[in-house]
Amino acid sequence: MFKFTYNIPTKVYFGGDQLSNLGPELKKFGKRVLLCYGGGSIKKIGLYDKIVTEIKKAGLELFELSGIEPNPRVTSVNRGAQICKDENIDVLLAVGGGSVIDCTKFVGAGKYYDGDAWDLVTRKAPITNCLPIVTVLTLAATGSEMDCGGVITNLETNDKIGMGASIMRPRVSFLDPANTYTVSPYQTACGSADIFSHLVETYFNPTGSMFMLDTFMEGMMKTVVKYAPVAVAHPKNEEARANLMWTSSWAINDFVSACQRCTWSCHPMEHQLSAYYDITHGLGLAILTPRWMRYVLDETTAERFRNFAVSVFGVDPTLPNMEAAKAGIEAVEKFLFEDLKLTKTLTELGIDKTHFTEMADKACHAKGGRVLKGYKHLTPKDVEAIYEMCL
Amino acid sequence: MFKFTYNIPTKVYFGGDQLSNLGPELKKFGKRVLLCYGGGSIKKIGLYDKIVTEIKKAGLELFELSGIEPNPRVTSVNRGAQICKDENIDVLLAVGGGSVIDCTKFVGAGKYYDGDAWDLVTRKAPITNCLPIVTVLTLAATGSEMDCGGVITNLETNDKIGMGASIMRPRVSFLDPANTYTVSPYQTACGSADIFSHLVETYFNPTGSMFMLDTFMEGMMKTVVKYAPVAVAHPKNEEARANLMWTSSWAINDFVSACQRCTWSCHPMEHQLSAYYDITHGLGLAILTPRWMRYVLDETTAERFRNFAVSVFGVDPTLPNMEAAKAGIEAVEKFLFEDLKLTKTLTELGIDKTHFTEMADKACHAKGGRVLKGYKHLTPKDVEAIYEMCL
Repeated sequence: MFKFTYNIPTKVYFGGDQLSNLGPELKKFGKRVLLCYGGGSIKKIGLYDKIVTEIKKAGLELFELSGIEPNPRVTSVNRGAQICKDENIDVLLAVGGGSVIDCTKFVGAGKYYDGDAWDLVTRKAPITNCLPIVTVLTLAATGSEMDCGGVITNLETNDKIGMGASIMRPRVSFLDPANTYTVSPYQTACGSADIFSHLVETYFNPTGSMFMLDTFMEGMMKTVVKYAPVAVAHPKNEEARANLMWTSSWAINDFVSACQRCTWSCHPMEHQLSAYYDITHGLGLAILTPRWMRYVLDETTAERFRNFAVSVFGVDPTLPNMEAAKAGIEAVEKFLFEDLKLTKTLTELGIDKTHFTEMADKACHAKGGRVLKGYKHLTPKDVEAIYEMCL
Repeated sequence: MFKFTYNIPTKVYFGGDQLSNLGPELKKFGKRVLLCYGGGSIKKIGLYDKIVTEIKKAGLELFELSGIEPNPRVTSVNRGAQICKDENIDVLLAVGGGSVIDCTKFVGAGKYYDGDAWDLVTRKAPITNCLPIVTVLTLAATGSEMDCGGVITNLETNDKIGMGASIMRPRVSFLDPANTYTVSPYQTACGSADIFSHLVETYFNPTGSMFMLDTFMEGMMKTVVKYAPVAVAHPKNEEARANLMWTSSWAINDFVSACQRCTWSCHPMEHQLSAYYDITHGLGLAILTPRWMRYVLDETTAERFRNFAVSVFGVDPTLPNMEAAKAGIEAVEKFLFEDLKLTKTLTELGIDKTHFTEMADKACHAKGGRVLKGYKHLTPKDVEAIYEMCL
């Protein structure tokens, strides 16, 4: 059981005034840099100019892929891969949040594939290589800055699929909490819900874990619960932003999940939600998570939920397991819907049950079988029931 | 405050049946391997034969440095560095506990220095380079398998000095808990006290930390308190050995100390104890730690000690700070001297106050000044008083 390979070589420059290291780090990988970013918010906060200055100072050649979408689309991946081929790019620089970094990973892999990059996302073709990736993070959420996965959307087929390969893990990431000071309270809340969900998905797993790693997951969940409301209320609170940012990286970089076969539940369900309705990933997770918890809570899972409730929310350890477990789930709801003020139901987002059957089928199928093999195995009927609890 | 560079690229093969990866990993660095080990216990447990088999299978050339001492001596370092020069060694393979790995690090650095390696330990000459190091760990204690420091003893001068350089951090480490099943209850207890001390030294620091990293330190201390007694009582308990081993690495690999200027107190004091009396490092730390805690506990430190007591030992959080702090220190004493059955006083080890003044001077001087700049600054008089509390 306690067997794994740990290999997370990403180098991280954390905190302010570290961008002078950007040029030298990029230069290690070559001269021709493709700067990948989204809708231009990095220009508004002055980050774009700083980065271009550093790239020029290092004597590197700059190319650009802009307009990467939230829930990034395979069309952007293909566009970027084509630039890499045409311009013989040496290294990719992703500046943005998880969507930009996820897209950049498949751009780097797409450089080595002759064909539609969607084949790499859907496992139709293997990921054989990837350009080196450097990131400058602007949103604490997905952990893409230090992990090896990404999620890509195909609007033509209504598909949103996660896929990973160790070769896609960023080599160097610049994590400056100050770059998240302008993130809106709503996006801060959604990002925090995403981090929290990564930890919940890993903490509740069928194979168990190592106690030491359990304490780390509990500590990170406590960190999110403590600091997400602070960052929502005080966007320029360095302590809150720093804690959220470093937690986002470690929640999902393969460290705490080391000795598990990690099988997630809420993410596959949420991917259908945002594939069909293009809602914010973290919001979908926030709505789903407590409902999923109530659905899988039973005599066999109560003890684990009790430990979660006691360690993360300080629920009274003398309560019976089931009672403590329920108090823990109530605390999750209070955290997400009161402290972070996130929308509580799909109904409020204008979503009804029209596509639930189809989405539930896809959520289960997406894991390569007819059952979603998470903490508790879920059939399409189960998933549909959980969607309905969200109305 | 929240500014640091994270760069811990050590690759770890954790758990059983991973030694087939040893040959291929060594081969990446060259053909000529120097196997470094201690007194032969690795032969008794059959590890030596397994490793030699893997080295031969990979077609590598094997050289040996054996007889590395507990509290490794600079004479062994010089002997090893000479072999590296004479035989043109490409890569070092350290098989053993912290002493073997510490010695191996300075052997690797000594290869690039013309002169007595003691100069590198004492900072008289800079560490400019180091041979690549691969380790197979047989004792959960010092964390040397994933950090960049080492402690070397010079018996001629009664000096024991710690020194580090990032180039000395092991590239690959094999951590199989089963390789610690034959570690005696006494050595298991001492190793666990060492891990616990690394966390205490980092947790109690004058610059504060990041909340997320505090929770990790608390979690690791809880892990040691939970599993060290299990491993002492049941040496082949995989869960206990695995938790202690992975905690030993993460307690001191620069991760949890990231945003601190880490200034330690008990280690410099202990180094004098084992330099003068050659006692086991972990035992010296166990004797010193609760005395140091009582000495530095005051109104300014009580809150931090309270958090420690509540988080690590489950002390009642409603107690006043000072009362909770004292209950925490009592819990540390119970853990070390009752649960782990470690010797409680220096007197029982036959040590009296003869050298205390001299040792206290050295402990303070070793930090480059006349004051030991730890969590609370300690003068030689303070250090002497703490030594006397240990009688």
